[in-house]
Amino acid sequence: MQFRPVKEQLEILMRGVTDIVPQDELEKKLQKSYETGKPLRIKMGVDPTAPDVHFGHTVVMRKLRQFQDLGHTVVLIVGDYTAQIGDPSGRNKARPRLTHEQVLENAKEYQEQFFKVVRRDQVEIHYNGEWFSKLPFSKVTELMGQFTVAQMLEREDFHNRYTANTPISLHEFMYPMMQGYDSVAIQSDVELGGTDQKFNVLRGRDLQIFEGMEPQIGLFMPILLGTDGKVKMSKSIGNYVGLNEPADVMYHKIYSLSDNIVENWYELLTNIPLDEVKQMMADIAAGKMNPNDAKHRLAIDIVTQYYGAEAAEAAAAKEREIHSGNAIPSDALECSVDAGSYGALDLLVNIKAFASKGEARRMVQNGGVKIGGEKLADPQAQIEIKGGDQLVVQVGKRKFFKVNF
Amino acid sequence: MQFRPVKEQLEILMRGVTDIVPQDELEKKLQKSYETGKPLRIKMGVDPTAPDVHFGHTVVMRKLRQFQDLGHTVVLIVGDYTAQIGDPSGRNKARPRLTHEQVLENAKEYQEQFFKVVRRDQVEIHYNGEWFSKLPFSKVTELMGQFTVAQMLEREDFHNRYTANTPISLHEFMYPMMQGYDSVAIQSDVELGGTDQKFNVLRGRDLQIFEGMEPQIGLFMPILLGTDGKVKMSKSIGNYVGLNEPADVMYHKIYSLSDNIVENWYELLTNIPLDEVKQMMADIAAGKMNPNDAKHRLAIDIVTQYYGAEAAEAAAAKEREIHSGNAIPSDALECSVDAGSYGALDLLVNIKAFASKGEARRMVQNGGVKIGGEKLADPQAQIEIKGGDQLVVQVGKRKFFKVNF
Repeated sequence: MQFRPVKEQLEILMRGVTDIVPQDELEKKLQKSYETGKPLRIKMGVDPTAPDVHFGHTVVMRKLRQFQDLGHTVVLIVGDYTAQIGDPSGRNKARPRLTHEQVLENAKEYQEQFFKVVRRDQVEIHYNGEWFSKLPFSKVTELMGQFTVAQMLEREDFHNRYTANTPISLHEFMYPMMQGYDSVAIQSDVELGGTDQKFNVLRGRDLQIFEGMEPQIGLFMPILLGTDGKVKMSKSIGNYVGLNEPADVMYHKIYSLSDNIVENWYELLTNIPLDEVKQMMADIAAGKMNPNDAKHRLAIDIVTQYYGAEAAEAAAAKEREIHSGNAIPSDALECSVDAGSYGALDLLVNIKAFASKGEARRMVQNGGVKIGGEKLADPQAQIEIKGGDQLVVQVGKRKFFKVNF
Repeated sequence: MQFRPVKEQLEILMRGVTDIVPQDELEKKLQKSYETGKPLRIKMGVDPTAPDVHFGHTVVMRKLRQFQDLGHTVVLIVGDYTAQIGDPSGRNKARPRLTHEQVLENAKEYQEQFFKVVRRDQVEIHYNGEWFSKLPFSKVTELMGQFTVAQMLEREDFHNRYTANTPISLHEFMYPMMQGYDSVAIQSDVELGGTDQKFNVLRGRDLQIFEGMEPQIGLFMPILLGTDGKVKMSKSIGNYVGLNEPADVMYHKIYSLSDNIVENWYELLTNIPLDEVKQMMADIAAGKMNPNDAKHRLAIDIVTQYYGAEAAEAAAAKEREIHSGNAIPSDALECSVDAGSYGALDLLVNIKAFASKGEARRMVQNGGVKIGGEKLADPQAQIEIKGGDQLVVQVGKRKFFKVNF
């Protein structure tokens, strides 16, 4: 096949990249691929330990998509075997072990989300059980012999656990070997990963060299900060945007993004030319542009990627309606309560809007609670409800409850 | 089957034992075996990394034989898979890896020597490739998950290598798991080993418990000191007696034993009652017995075990003849030299009795060299030899060369 010139490819591929190891080999590989008409094999491994995909994961997926769009082949490795160990990278304790069934179930859900970013053509999908289930024990010992204990314990995560006397199970030391052997098995040219994957990706190079292959290149993407602009995006911290979230919720979360990372999100999550992005940032700094307009454009661009332009505009419109009190967002929590007469505070605790009546009272007194669109002024108010009714309860700016009776 | 009472068995089995872990369980196991008529399964693992067996190895083999004589079953595990890694116990660097063919060849030679001590009935022999060649990768990771890095690095040998920056390959960390899993595979009741095997044997207990089995007991024998009475018997140090050595050489080496370990050798290498041994030692201390008589009895007892009583007596007789200059020992080195005329010193260097003429001259001047039974007085002597002749050259007390022309 005919590829675009290497220089053009590099311009696209280098966007947002943190590090390439080794630097000079990517160009050589692209040149060879250009000359021979043979696509590069771009590896990405995933351990579907949890099936929820958020924007943090799409940074690498989008890079895969760029390779695809340039004619290269994406090789997704679903680590059904590695997931049973759990990548110890960056962890301070051993992961819980998953059963093979859990992993396969997660993998299915994962792929549905993966293909929201990556095209379904030019993809190979492999489960690493394909080779590990058949790997003879003697090969395992041979591969393990390519690693040293010191090499493992020099890793910051293992080092910290070892010095803190937090147990490291020996099977965790097998993880880098397994990830590395994946590269041997699929003969990857490039492996993509977050910067926390550097150790594992370089071990893949080692094993490919050991097996007499041309070694892969590691291409590392930054870790995306969450909506708070402070720490790595993470579901457990709550600063995430999930790929499965409704368009209006997605729009809202991006529109509420912390100012300091708007530029970074543009770079990592859109294809808008970086010159334009720089200009916007300069305009904002000069007071010539409202930061919200930059966030609106970012949100429209990203929501469009997942739901199309029309849905993105609708999401923006709904955000404005919610602000005016004329709509409730899709992520309102639904709950059910028996029909009857309730003290307002009892009701709020009952639907788990607050942990205690004291907490609820303070928020009501601060004017932060609306029931049925009306501000609740009196904490002692009695609320009567008939079966079949629905009541919308709003706490603060954007926490909504749809209470069914 | 009907066993001897537990107390009698223990009396025999405790001879020379350094440690039993845990102490109380051996008696319980023997009691159960006595009641049910079911023999215990006594495991010994061997990695035939080198096929030469010496007395140091027989300390454990003799204990196996005692178990056999009491009706129990010996399970010899030939570590064809473990040998390819090499036991890191007590080592300060990784062992060279052997091929499977080398290991099988060594194993054959090893067994020939093993059966000089252990009976051929009541033995099961297993190669651990039986189970390791079929062990699925997922089971390997599960088993490795039962060990921690800290547990490994607390071992003195690994600890020393780690702190000295001597590389430890990860496959060496698999060794204790493998030895432990051997115990699971053959359902051992007791594992025998030298004291340096304590860590590995206890890991076997762990894995048996993990697999829901009644765990084995570790029975540890001391490390035998070599003929010099100073350090562990070892072929490379030269203080060893090999099982394949001729009767007269075996006799000679035992008869020349360092005084300080005669009692220990009686305990570990013979069945002579310990009371009798103690009495001999007391007699020697009191000047009532010549230490050589104790060594003679020891040598006769041991040589008899391998060659029979008649050969043992013949070996003793030959030792006396050699001392009187009337015989040459079986381990005389044979070599060939062209017929002709030689300067004495040239000849001595030529047959590799000495590294240089200077060394040879000093020994001749000290009266330490005999040629053809005559002391060589003149370093300048010229020696004429016809084809077909044989000349015996003696250096010092017991180094003999049979030189063929």
